[in-house]
Amino acid sequence: MSDFEPQNPEFAAVVRASFARQGLMRALGIELVEVGPGTCALEAAAHSRLTQQQGFFHGALIGAMLDCAGGYAAYSLMPPGTDVLTTEYKVNFVAAAEGDRLIARGRVIKPGRTLTVATAEAFCRRDGVETLCAVLLQSLICIPARAAGSIRP
Amino acid sequence: MSDFEPQNPEFAAVVRASFARQGLMRALGIELVEVGPGTCALEAAAHSRLTQQQGFFHGALIGAMLDCAGGYAAYSLMPPGTDVLTTEYKVNFVAAAEGDRLIARGRVIKPGRTLTVATAEAFCRRDGVETLCAVLLQSLICIPARAAGSIRP
Amino acid sequence: MSDFEPQNPEFAAVVRASFARQGLMRALGIELVEVGPGTCALEAAAHSRLTQQQGFFHGALIGAMLDCAGGYAAYSLMPPGTDVLTTEYKVNFVAAAEGDRLIARGRVIKPGRTLTVATAEAFCRRDGVETLCAVLLQSLICIPARAAGSIRP
Amino acid sequence: MSDFEPQNPEFAAVVRASFARQGLMRALGIELVEVGPGTCALEAAAHSRLTQQQGFFHGALIGAMLDCAGGYAAYSLMPPGTDVLTTEYKVNFVAAAEGDRLIARGRVIKPGRTLTVATAEAFCRRDGVETLCAVLLQSLICIPARAAGSIRP
Repeated sequence: MSDFEPQNPEFAAVVRASFARQGLMRALGIELVEVGPGTCALEAAAHSRLTQQQGFFHGALIGAMLDCAGGYAAYSLMPPGTDVLTTEYKVNFVAAAEGDRLIARGRVIKPGRTLTVATAEAFCRRDGVETLCAVLLQSLICIPARAAGSIRP
Repeated sequence: MSDFEPQNPEFAAVVRASFARQGLMRALGIELVEVGPGTCALEAAAHSRLTQQQGFFHGALIGAMLDCAGGYAAYSLMPPGTDVLTTEYKVNFVAAAEGDRLIARGRVIKPGRTLTVATAEAFCRRDGVETLCAVLLQSLICIPARAAGSIRP
Repeated sequence: MSDFEPQNPEFAAVVRASFARQGLMRALGIELVEVGPGTCALEAAAHSRLTQQQGFFHGALIGAMLDCAGGYAAYSLMPPGTDVLTTEYKVNFVAAAEGDRLIARGRVIKPGRTLTVATAEAFCRRDGVETLCAVLLQSLICIPARAAGSIRP
Repeated sequence: MSDFEPQNPEFAAVVRASFARQGLMRALGIELVEVGPGTCALEAAAHSRLTQQQGFFHGALIGAMLDCAGGYAAYSLMPPGTDVLTTEYKVNFVAAAEGDRLIARGRVIKPGRTLTVATAEAFCRRDGVETLCAVLLQSLICIPARAAGSIRP
């Protein structure tokens, strides 16, 4: 599924630990369901906290999950002692996001020492059928790891 | 602040009512603080549910607020009996998002019968000083209003 | 290679005729080498008129070819009597564009009555080896065909 | 017009020399008409080599000029001994590009040691009136200068 060689043998644990520190993902009930070398998948079950004005999954939520899925796909290929930040992302929506579950699958297009380019796709699952609902294209930067900060000390 | 003429004299009430139906905005504690013809501002106070792995405001949250601020700026200029959907958006991050408050200000660049192009800027406020932390460029489509759906009937 | 059903049996001839009217493509020596239902490929041979300041293929040229490849991939699925316009596109560059030939391959992600979303990849060919150098994500709108205008009457 | 302090007192000469080496800009007849600290403007007169299939300025040409205008706006703030590369850009089109002249004005949003974020606007001038036709949002990377390469030795 991936042709990339991880630089950190502990990449899966490192990705999961970083994801677990994201208050936003926890607050929204988003789960990390899979991480591989250069890939990452997140899922969320339908819930009223995830909706836009018509009751569908909110586009901004889809964007958030795609950003994280692509970001952690990129992070999985970064060396030990580093952290990842998104520098920019773009999302195109291709279908209304109705369903029981939302799935975001990220994949690295090109890893780099400084910048990594990733893509991700979002699918709605309904009665067992997945429908593509959005696509992301994204840049990520590798930075030295630092002590966790806080927006509310 | 805006050169645009609203087509719906009730635009502010319509925007506020739509925003109030967004479960995601409510779950994240994001407030609509201002709406004008072609403009919209949202704010959120720092909280652990809004963080990324280092404790800053999460980039995907910033993207979500920018998407909504731009989207409601666009919706303010749409005629009665319509709804708004984002077709795509792009966010560039320009500074780490530390602060007490996150503010997203959307503004229409070009309204259109079918497609509207909007932009938005996100600022972190810290000790009363605002710092630009992200910029959005976005397309929105005007569709006929429909009965609210639900992802969880 | 594509799962899409063209609505216009003459799609290949229509795409080629439209491409032939593009003064920019002709001026740059870009060739349409392939068109299928939902796909399109363009190529250009290395030439001094295609360079940036370091002598590589210019990123803006790569963006232009990707835009056209995605655009004509989209146009191939549109009904008779219509024309195509790009409403927005985004390009990420992933490698320096050195080589004898530049190839842009477009592919529709999701066709739509109004909006179509497409993607495209650019490759440099050098000594027979292709290297991915850029990726595009794009929106296109289907409009009624009109008599050709002119920027210089 | 700009709040930025150039790091290279010779920035204008450096930008003009780099622009002059771009074969693509020369082939298309695009002129650099202005460069300031963090700003750059390019212009092109209407010509059949710049058209799309309907005779308007080609969107991909507009994208190319916007990319260059933003790129040189960014380069104007970079230190001596460096070069600039676009890592990604996005263009939204907001009006048909009819007119005698196309003008692209770039402006830095946030300069950075590694990455700079810029924006640019394209205008069509017709009978002395300028109309906004496209907007760009872009990332640029500062790299060490190197001897000019060539795609055709």
